[in-house]
Amino acid sequence: MKKKYLMTPGPTPVPPEVLLTQARPIIHHRTPEFDQVVQNCVEGLKYVFQTEKSDVLIFACSGSGVMESSVVNCFCAGDEILIAINGKFGQRMELIAKAYGLEVSVLEYGWQEVVNPLDIAEYLEKHPSTRGVVVTQSETSSGVLNNIEVVGDIVKGYPECIFIVDSITGIGAVDCKTDEWGLDVVMTGSQKGLMLPPGLAAVSVSPKAWAASERSTLPKFYFDWKKYLKSLAQNTTPFTPAVSLMIGLDASLKMMREEGMENVIARHARLAEATRQGVVALGLELFAPAEGRGNAVTPVWVPEGIDGKQLVKIMKTKHGVTIAGGQDDYAGRIIRIGHLGYFDDLDIIVTLAALEMALLELEFDFEPGSGVKAAEAVLMGVKS
Amino acid sequence: MKKKYLMTPGPTPVPPEVLLTQARPIIHHRTPEFDQVVQNCVEGLKYVFQTEKSDVLIFACSGSGVMESSVVNCFCAGDEILIAINGKFGQRMELIAKAYGLEVSVLEYGWQEVVNPLDIAEYLEKHPSTRGVVVTQSETSSGVLNNIEVVGDIVKGYPECIFIVDSITGIGAVDCKTDEWGLDVVMTGSQKGLMLPPGLAAVSVSPKAWAASERSTLPKFYFDWKKYLKSLAQNTTPFTPAVSLMIGLDASLKMMREEGMENVIARHARLAEATRQGVVALGLELFAPAEGRGNAVTPVWVPEGIDGKQLVKIMKTKHGVTIAGGQDDYAGRIIRIGHLGYFDDLDIIVTLAALEMALLELEFDFEPGSGVKAAEAVLMGVKS
Repeated sequence: MKKKYLMTPGPTPVPPEVLLTQARPIIHHRTPEFDQVVQNCVEGLKYVFQTEKSDVLIFACSGSGVMESSVVNCFCAGDEILIAINGKFGQRMELIAKAYGLEVSVLEYGWQEVVNPLDIAEYLEKHPSTRGVVVTQSETSSGVLNNIEVVGDIVKGYPECIFIVDSITGIGAVDCKTDEWGLDVVMTGSQKGLMLPPGLAAVSVSPKAWAASERSTLPKFYFDWKKYLKSLAQNTTPFTPAVSLMIGLDASLKMMREEGMENVIARHARLAEATRQGVVALGLELFAPAEGRGNAVTPVWVPEGIDGKQLVKIMKTKHGVTIAGGQDDYAGRIIRIGHLGYFDDLDIIVTLAALEMALLELEFDFEPGSGVKAAEAVLMGVKS
Repeated sequence: MKKKYLMTPGPTPVPPEVLLTQARPIIHHRTPEFDQVVQNCVEGLKYVFQTEKSDVLIFACSGSGVMESSVVNCFCAGDEILIAINGKFGQRMELIAKAYGLEVSVLEYGWQEVVNPLDIAEYLEKHPSTRGVVVTQSETSSGVLNNIEVVGDIVKGYPECIFIVDSITGIGAVDCKTDEWGLDVVMTGSQKGLMLPPGLAAVSVSPKAWAASERSTLPKFYFDWKKYLKSLAQNTTPFTPAVSLMIGLDASLKMMREEGMENVIARHARLAEATRQGVVALGLELFAPAEGRGNAVTPVWVPEGIDGKQLVKIMKTKHGVTIAGGQDDYAGRIIRIGHLGYFDDLDIIVTLAALEMALLELEFDFEPGSGVKAAEAVLMGVKS
């Protein structure tokens, strides 16, 4: 027997009480029972997105689908948009926008850099006809947290330009004040902070984004926001929804409301800090820069002389702990420890202990127990 | 307490052993374990689609998403296609194709008519530049079964024209010989004959359809078949898959393989015939014409003097049996009894008995027990 622990930034662990909803006999989606589920999910998501002004729409698709929905609903071919890229998912938005014939300008940063809002301000001054700015709030690939509050403030000054935020691993882990910060389009996926299996994605649409959608001429059908909005007036969906996942979402959103959004975010901040202090105490180096570290995932440099893929493999096979490796250029060079969604204090201890044992096996030179000790200090609120 | 029975043509009941897979702790999708699930699902779907020549691709979306995928992958704006419409889902294909700027010709039939393959042959003779023909094999809205074998034979004669079959409620209920009948694109959804919750859809793509996709210039990303094919070579998916639903699909496909495709279809034919004989014995009239009745759903005219919505409501609230009403023009005028997927002999008896009791309550004049009796005769193999 080997107990298994899923410590990745998506899919994330699903709470047992939510998992059990997935085993319930299926119900029909055109019924008062399911209408109630839709209503609960939308209200719960508005709470999580911290919005009263925006509509929240739910799709049966994964995160990339909802990213595509933001492009096809808000723009026309030839529209100029600016994408700030400092990781894999910013790159994906670029691919989508180009697939639909948008004129894409890119502010490219290294994966270890945060997006500089001043660069965006400068760009918009020079290119006032820009129709949209896209920023990934929390990069799953690098753990970098971008300051979307400041960017929101800048984009507010351009009435024809909307601000699109990929918060797929942000929502539920870090603060995302949709209304207050002027975020026109915010996206998330079910298998992240919402503590569900993958297969659902949600987007919030501000009045400014709806106005943009009015002039959009890009072809669309399944991802046509207006169809979803129209159905939502009757608490239903234009196409068959992922019934069981929606019922699960209803359950997980209730858990988040019970805990309270502030507490959810504070818990993630505590777990992230414990993870960071833990790995640093082991003598490892954090990948994300001090000025922008998110709460969803902690990427860590694999120390010299250690094979990163081997490290991940030992943690999984010997200790049952699945963490993520690096993507693209960083495959084998970094490890990524997820603490997004259904995570609590002792999950961090479990991961750090497994990491310590794997490093010991690989003969890395460090003080055994030091990582766990440092994490405990954070979890107990002791300043180091 | 009231036991509940879901007798609708989608979502359909999910077998308990499949439901239980949905409550298992989530696993990561970039692992050898999940690669095996992907491989099993593709092989199982090829078996169910009766194809060796076509690739089968799986998406996290509902049926309408995979319908859109067939349009955006096979055509260019301005391409001429022919859609034969005799129900709600043919209409949907028309909406999708027009949303993407195709030149759509429609062969329109009544909801109680079958598509006449000769009309298609005649059309193609006059319009040899037609790039695609679309037919719904089994119309969920009307229960009509169209003869796609003959249409397949006709379209084979046009090397530049592909044949797209919406078999969303066909696959698993009626024969669908993808290779033998020359079906270039066949689509289905998880919440139908595959006995799963909604949220997954699959499409088969023939070499002729791949050739068509080579010249397609329509914008696409999430539904880009080539991305899925490329990932499939590594038994994976380009975007995060609906992990739990895929694991469920693996389980339900194993059940279908164990039963054997011929037996699965024979069971559906038996249940459909028992339902038809049962309602006719009650003095009700079948909606679909004798020359084209499918095995997935049996629509029945609500007899004069009876309120169809009331009938559906009594069956649900008094007897726990959920059937579907009519759609669009037929709302309140027909009822639709589903027997698609996880259905066995006694499910038909349950539905007919509930129908009898509801009709009795509404003071419809018939011989109580006669519907059940007629169904029993069919189920026992006795010729009436």
